[in-house]
Amino acid sequence: MLYDNLTINDRGHLTIAGHDTTELVREYGTPLMVLDEDRVRARCRTYVEALREHFPAGSLPLYASKALSFKEIYRLAATEGMGIDVVSIGEIHTAQQAGFPLERAYFHGNNKTDEDIAFAMEHGVGYFVCDNLDELDAIDAKAGRRGIRQKLLLRLTPGIDPHTHEKINTGRIDSKFGAAIETGQAEELVVRALSKQNVELLGYHCHIGSQIFDHTPFCDAAILMLQFLADMRDRHGFCAPVLNLGGGMGVPYTDTDPVIDYKANIEKIGKLVADTCKKLNIPAPAILMEPGRSLVADACTTLYTVGGTKVIPGFKNYVSVDGGMTDNPRYALYQAAYTVALANRMQDPADFCCTVAGRCCESGDLIQEDVTIPTPRRGDLLAVFTTGAYNYSMASNYNRVPRPAMVALSDGQHRLVIRRESLDDLTRNDV
Amino acid sequence: MLYDNLTINDRGHLTIAGHDTTELVREYGTPLMVLDEDRVRARCRTYVEALREHFPAGSLPLYASKALSFKEIYRLAATEGMGIDVVSIGEIHTAQQAGFPLERAYFHGNNKTDEDIAFAMEHGVGYFVCDNLDELDAIDAKAGRRGIRQKLLLRLTPGIDPHTHEKINTGRIDSKFGAAIETGQAEELVVRALSKQNVELLGYHCHIGSQIFDHTPFCDAAILMLQFLADMRDRHGFCAPVLNLGGGMGVPYTDTDPVIDYKANIEKIGKLVADTCKKLNIPAPAILMEPGRSLVADACTTLYTVGGTKVIPGFKNYVSVDGGMTDNPRYALYQAAYTVALANRMQDPADFCCTVAGRCCESGDLIQEDVTIPTPRRGDLLAVFTTGAYNYSMASNYNRVPRPAMVALSDGQHRLVIRRESLDDLTRNDV
Repeated sequence: MLYDNLTINDRGHLTIAGHDTTELVREYGTPLMVLDEDRVRARCRTYVEALREHFPAGSLPLYASKALSFKEIYRLAATEGMGIDVVSIGEIHTAQQAGFPLERAYFHGNNKTDEDIAFAMEHGVGYFVCDNLDELDAIDAKAGRRGIRQKLLLRLTPGIDPHTHEKINTGRIDSKFGAAIETGQAEELVVRALSKQNVELLGYHCHIGSQIFDHTPFCDAAILMLQFLADMRDRHGFCAPVLNLGGGMGVPYTDTDPVIDYKANIEKIGKLVADTCKKLNIPAPAILMEPGRSLVADACTTLYTVGGTKVIPGFKNYVSVDGGMTDNPRYALYQAAYTVALANRMQDPADFCCTVAGRCCESGDLIQEDVTIPTPRRGDLLAVFTTGAYNYSMASNYNRVPRPAMVALSDGQHRLVIRRESLDDLTRNDV
Repeated sequence: MLYDNLTINDRGHLTIAGHDTTELVREYGTPLMVLDEDRVRARCRTYVEALREHFPAGSLPLYASKALSFKEIYRLAATEGMGIDVVSIGEIHTAQQAGFPLERAYFHGNNKTDEDIAFAMEHGVGYFVCDNLDELDAIDAKAGRRGIRQKLLLRLTPGIDPHTHEKINTGRIDSKFGAAIETGQAEELVVRALSKQNVELLGYHCHIGSQIFDHTPFCDAAILMLQFLADMRDRHGFCAPVLNLGGGMGVPYTDTDPVIDYKANIEKIGKLVADTCKKLNIPAPAILMEPGRSLVADACTTLYTVGGTKVIPGFKNYVSVDGGMTDNPRYALYQAAYTVALANRMQDPADFCCTVAGRCCESGDLIQEDVTIPTPRRGDLLAVFTTGAYNYSMASNYNRVPRPAMVALSDGQHRLVIRRESLDDLTRNDV
């Protein structure tokens, strides 16, 4: 099995954290997203403890909540002592409704509108991660009018390609996010921020990519960012007390993906940061990290009911499920890899190679191609693993398909954490 | 200008059907979708009249409402005397709430669940377009239990590639939709349907693709479908009275796309159908067509507020807007082409080549690359044309961004037809 919380019971059914998937579906219907809350909490603790152990005081993981944003996940992040990374007033509102202490929230995004800035300040969001000069001016002006001094990080692009592990002159500098170190624009942003009366510059942020399995790209980025930090101290007398290394640690979606040791990676980055600070003769900054996918992706499984199965002799086989790109657009967007299983017949011989298709009237509405499972029958239960990140959060009502429900599993109990969308929800804003 | 309802007024502002876009935005905010209702109605009439003129009695265009589904559009389709193509109980519910006469609805989809089938029958949906054998059995069983005889079309794949205009052995037969004529599976489906007590088979449906500018692929498909119709008459004594040729007529998104004459295309298809029926010695069936995109796409414009503009020397320029893949995922999904304009400064020199980026924390959240507009300033208004189809209908709350509002323009008036999503809407289903 792909993860250690998945087993097969004596009825041949898939179980998640000990819960028979067919029983969960009998109670909650399909499509159903099943989140192993204990698994998320364990992963949170790995980050919190590793950051505490290997970095200076004040270091903290922030949950990158765009991966999966709903009220209960912010409650979880709060009780695990994490910060959060939010990217819109919708996420701020959700966190606030959940009672998350917003002084531990970091407000990201390449385009914060004036209304966004006002909303975030009004609700006491602790930190802004400022993307560009226009935005810096807007934040300073708004803070001035409110009579506050807004704490700030600056988003920089260090020019790292996580998959070549090299500093490069292309690609990563060409980004809609942040200011590039190499072009001098990062320094310009620092100088401008230091000149502002109503912002308190605390440090820098970078995010080099996602699905990174190795620690070395993070180390490469840290070296560049620390060098920049030292340069800014030398040139402008500002020694940043905070460095945010962003997110991007990977999660295995299939058996062939590498397994990742988060704790070991963080330890290696910690050692590199300490060594580099010593070399550069700067006090080691507090380190923030922004895990999103790696906290939630492999804790969630989506369960679908199988509809028709189609054998096209000489071409391909299709099996249709009662969801698809509406709840999981990642195959349509990126041809993302997923592992699937026939959850109610886990011990039947897997002899049917097929494409798992969604229910939308769109050829591209596929979940995965060329998977091998037992020949499915109408009414069977199909499980798609690793759906915690960028599935529900990216879900749509395309074809006016309601978004699924989500249940959380914890301590042997299950409970609804997101209600299934109703037909009336779909027409709520239609005049 | 791209379409004849777009002009520039003496303030240098873009107008749509005579409405100053800056004034619409002052009243309704951004992002705002502006639908020229009169343009949609005119296009509906083109289809209705051309089908009436060039095809036998009973021929009708059905609005393929997956392109843009909300209550008011069904009211519009009803008053224009059209049928509708629906693909989910969400669309059926929306149409029903709008008062659309569901006996003129055709229920499509590759995976109708048992609940879907029951719901559609309960609400009096006129026709099912049956996709496969499993579904046929389910429809027949459900109709039997309800004591009705369900009217039915069968979805077939004729094996036409609309872009090569040839009958081919690959590609189009490999589809999650329908039964292929070439493999004998279409005939098997016909035989099974004819054997059922509780369904009334009326004919066949095919859909060969989308963004087709030429009539010939439709003619090629019609020939194959009519040949099949004749074959079924000869072999099984069933002469179908209805043939549904699906949708797919194109819309120009840019100046370089061909302009399409819908009326002339339909006339040519009409002549081909009449001639072919004569040759095959079959009575000409009533012809259904399913325009979706070609009714709504070029009637809608999305208006965004510009945020930051980013010049990366030696690389690229970015301009960020307050929407993006959340309201228009078509660039992220298909690298779809769009035309854009700076709506409040239409007469300023267009000297700034840039990528229009959305506000999501995702590198792929772009609206269009390499467009040339006047150098934008924070607060400017950016218009993206041709956003009526597969924009709002595919919209998501990724990054918890609320979905935009839509206004309709008609007879010199404007009115809200879809309310802007609220922050409370976003958390409505969170427990």
